[in-house]
Amino acid sequence: MAVTTIEWRNDSVRMIDQRLLPGREVFRVFHDYQGVARAISEMIIRGAPAIGVAAAMGVALGLKGTHSARAERRFAVVAHKLKSTRPTAVNLSWALARMERVLRASLDLPARALFERLRDEALAIQREDVAANRALGRFGMQLLSDPSVVLTHCNAGALATAGYGTALGIVRAAREAGKKVRVVADETRPFFQGSRLTAWELRKDRIPVTVIADNMAGLLLSRHGADCVIVGADRVAANGDVANKIGTYPLAVLAQRHGIPFYVAAPLSSIDFTCPNGDGIPIEERAAEELVMVGGRRVAPAGVKAFNFAFDITPADLVTAIITERGVIRPPLDRGLVALKRVLEGPAAAAQGAATGATFSAPAANASAGSYLR
Amino acid sequence: MAVTTIEWRNDSVRMIDQRLLPGREVFRVFHDYQGVARAISEMIIRGAPAIGVAAAMGVALGLKGTHSARAERRFAVVAHKLKSTRPTAVNLSWALARMERVLRASLDLPARALFERLRDEALAIQREDVAANRALGRFGMQLLSDPSVVLTHCNAGALATAGYGTALGIVRAAREAGKKVRVVADETRPFFQGSRLTAWELRKDRIPVTVIADNMAGLLLSRHGADCVIVGADRVAANGDVANKIGTYPLAVLAQRHGIPFYVAAPLSSIDFTCPNGDGIPIEERAAEELVMVGGRRVAPAGVKAFNFAFDITPADLVTAIITERGVIRPPLDRGLVALKRVLEGPAAAAQGAATGATFSAPAANASAGSYLR
Repeated sequence: MAVTTIEWRNDSVRMIDQRLLPGREVFRVFHDYQGVARAISEMIIRGAPAIGVAAAMGVALGLKGTHSARAERRFAVVAHKLKSTRPTAVNLSWALARMERVLRASLDLPARALFERLRDEALAIQREDVAANRALGRFGMQLLSDPSVVLTHCNAGALATAGYGTALGIVRAAREAGKKVRVVADETRPFFQGSRLTAWELRKDRIPVTVIADNMAGLLLSRHGADCVIVGADRVAANGDVANKIGTYPLAVLAQRHGIPFYVAAPLSSIDFTCPNGDGIPIEERAAEELVMVGGRRVAPAGVKAFNFAFDITPADLVTAIITERGVIRPPLDRGLVALKRVLEGPAAAAQGAATGATFSAPAANASAGSYLR
Repeated sequence: MAVTTIEWRNDSVRMIDQRLLPGREVFRVFHDYQGVARAISEMIIRGAPAIGVAAAMGVALGLKGTHSARAERRFAVVAHKLKSTRPTAVNLSWALARMERVLRASLDLPARALFERLRDEALAIQREDVAANRALGRFGMQLLSDPSVVLTHCNAGALATAGYGTALGIVRAAREAGKKVRVVADETRPFFQGSRLTAWELRKDRIPVTVIADNMAGLLLSRHGADCVIVGADRVAANGDVANKIGTYPLAVLAQRHGIPFYVAAPLSSIDFTCPNGDGIPIEERAAEELVMVGGRRVAPAGVKAFNFAFDITPADLVTAIITERGVIRPPLDRGLVALKRVLEGPAAAAQGAATGATFSAPAANASAGSYLR
C-alpha cells in the first residue's frame, strides 16, 4: 500500500488521520508524547500493532532532552499517559515494556544518545512489525484454498500495523503467491473500519473487496458466501481466548455453525502470556456519542442510553488456528501457546537478545518454524 | 404511542415518514396507489404488518371510481404494482389476497359502494392488526420473567404495525401487567430501525431502552446482559423457518449458544402456510447505496462493491416459540403450525367468515386458545 500509517520524521511522528479516510488523506504531525497519546485515544491511529509503534515513538518523543538521572521518573509519567489511552490491545503495554528495558540498559548514556537509542528502538519495533506481518502472511496464506473468499472484520491491514497487515497480510501474501483471493469486509460499526479502511487499502492494492453490514455475515455464511474468516487480535490470552474488535465473537460462533475455519492473525506482540484467559482482558467502553452520532447526525433520540463496547472475547474453543510470525498454532491452543513461549524463551531466542526485548522480533520464517506448533 | 403509523383520511392515506424519525415528525399524504407503492418501496412506511395495511389502503385508493365491470382487471394492475414493491414480507400478499376476495364478492355493487366496501375492508385489516398485536402481547408477556431485559432487533413496534407492535407489543403488555421490562435495541444497519424507531417509540412510552450496535449482541449475551431475544417476522414458513430483518439469524445462533430463549412475535398475517420452508422465501436485495452512504456521506471508497440484503432466514430449530394472537407455538414448530392451521380452517373459523378472508381476524384471546398449540 502506497500510504504509510505512521512515520518518524525530524524528531516528530507523522500519521495519516484514519478518522477521515477514505474521504480525505490528511496527515497529522505530533511533536510531543501528549499529542501521540491523544492520537491513540481519539483513534487518529488505531489497530493493535500500530498503536504499539505509536506508543514506542511517543516514549522517544517524551524522553527527548531528558537527562538519564531523571529518565526513569520521566518514563513513568510518559508511559502512564500513553498506556491509559486504550486498555484492550496488549501491544501498547508490550511496546512500553520493551522501551523500558532499553531505557534501563542505557542509563549510562548522555541525554542525546539516550534519546537516539530510544528512537532507534521505536524504529526497530516499526521495522520488525512489518517483517512479522510478512512472515505471518506467508504462514497464513498456506491455509487458504485457491480460489477463496475471506470474510474479515474491522481493519487488520496495513493501516492497523506498521505496514502490510496481519489478517490482510495473509490475503496479500496469498495474492503474491498467485492465489485468487477475494475479501468480504464487515463495515464494523460504529467506526466503520471495514467499509472505510479495509475497503480503501484493498482497493489501493487492487484486491477485490465487497462490503457488508456486520449483521449480514449470518446470511453470507448460510449461503456459502465465504470460505473462511480471518481477523486480527488486540490481545490473545495464554489459553487462546482472543480479544478483538466488537463483533468478532459472533463471527466465530457463525463460522463454527457453518463449519468454516475461523483464523486469528496475531503477531507475537499481541500475545499476552501473563493473562490466563479472556476474563482477564479489560474491555474498553467508549463514549455513547460515537454510536448514536453518525456522519454528524444523531440517529437515536436525544437522551437515549447506548452501550459502546469496543471489543469482545472469542473463546479459544471457537478458534481454528492462531497464525503468528513464528508459525501456526492449532488447538489445543493453550498447549500450542506454551510451546511457543518455550521456544521464545529458549537459548536460541536468548542469543538473539532476549534481554533487550528482542525476543519478540521476527526472524525470517522458515519451514520448520511452523512444525513444533503442531 | 401517541403517533399513528398509517391512517385513512378523506379518501387518502397519511403516514409518518419513518425515514426522518427521530429527528423530524413529518407526515406524507398519498391520494393514489402509485404513491402508496412508492412509500412502501422507499421505506417511508416499513414493517411487515404496516405494509400489509398500506397495501390494502392502496387497493382501495386504486379502485376508487372503478366500475365493477372493469374492477378485476384494474385490481390486477394495482395489486401487481403494490406487490412488486417488497418481496419478503408475506403480509403484503396476504392483504392483497384478502382485498381480492372482498372485491370478488362485491362485483354486483355500484362503483361508489364497491370502493366503500374495499375501504372498509382496509380499515378492518388495520383495526384487526392492532387487536391481534394486543392479543399476541398478552400471550407473549406471560413468557417474560420479572424483571427482565429483552434484546430486540429492528423495529417490531407500533411503527411496524397498525399500532401497539408485535415484539414491542409483548414488552408493552408486560409493562401494562406491571412487569419490570427493559429493552436493549440493536441499532439495525443500514436503516437504523433500532436506534431511530424502536428507541423513539419506547421513549415516548417511557419504557427504558438502551441502544447497541448490531455487532455488540455477542458480548451482551456472553455477559448475561439479556434474558431473552424477541423479534418480529416478515414471513414464517410452514416448518417454522422465519424470515426477518437482516441480522436476526445471528441473534438466534447467539441465543442458542447462551441458552436464552429466542421468541418470534408473528401475527397470523405473517405466516405463510403455502411456503414449506425458508428456502422458498425470497430475500430482498436493496441498493448498495443504502449501505455505503450514511447521513449523506459516503463511508466506503467510491466504486467499492457492497451487498445489501434486507432479510435473513432463521431456521426453525433455533426458535424457542412463535407467539401469535391465537397462542404460543412451541417446537416442533411444523406440527404446531399444522395444528394452528387446522383450527383456523375449522368450523368455528368458517362461521366467523372464512369465505371473506376473516379467517385471519383476531378473536379476543382466551385462556384456552394457547393450550392446543402445546
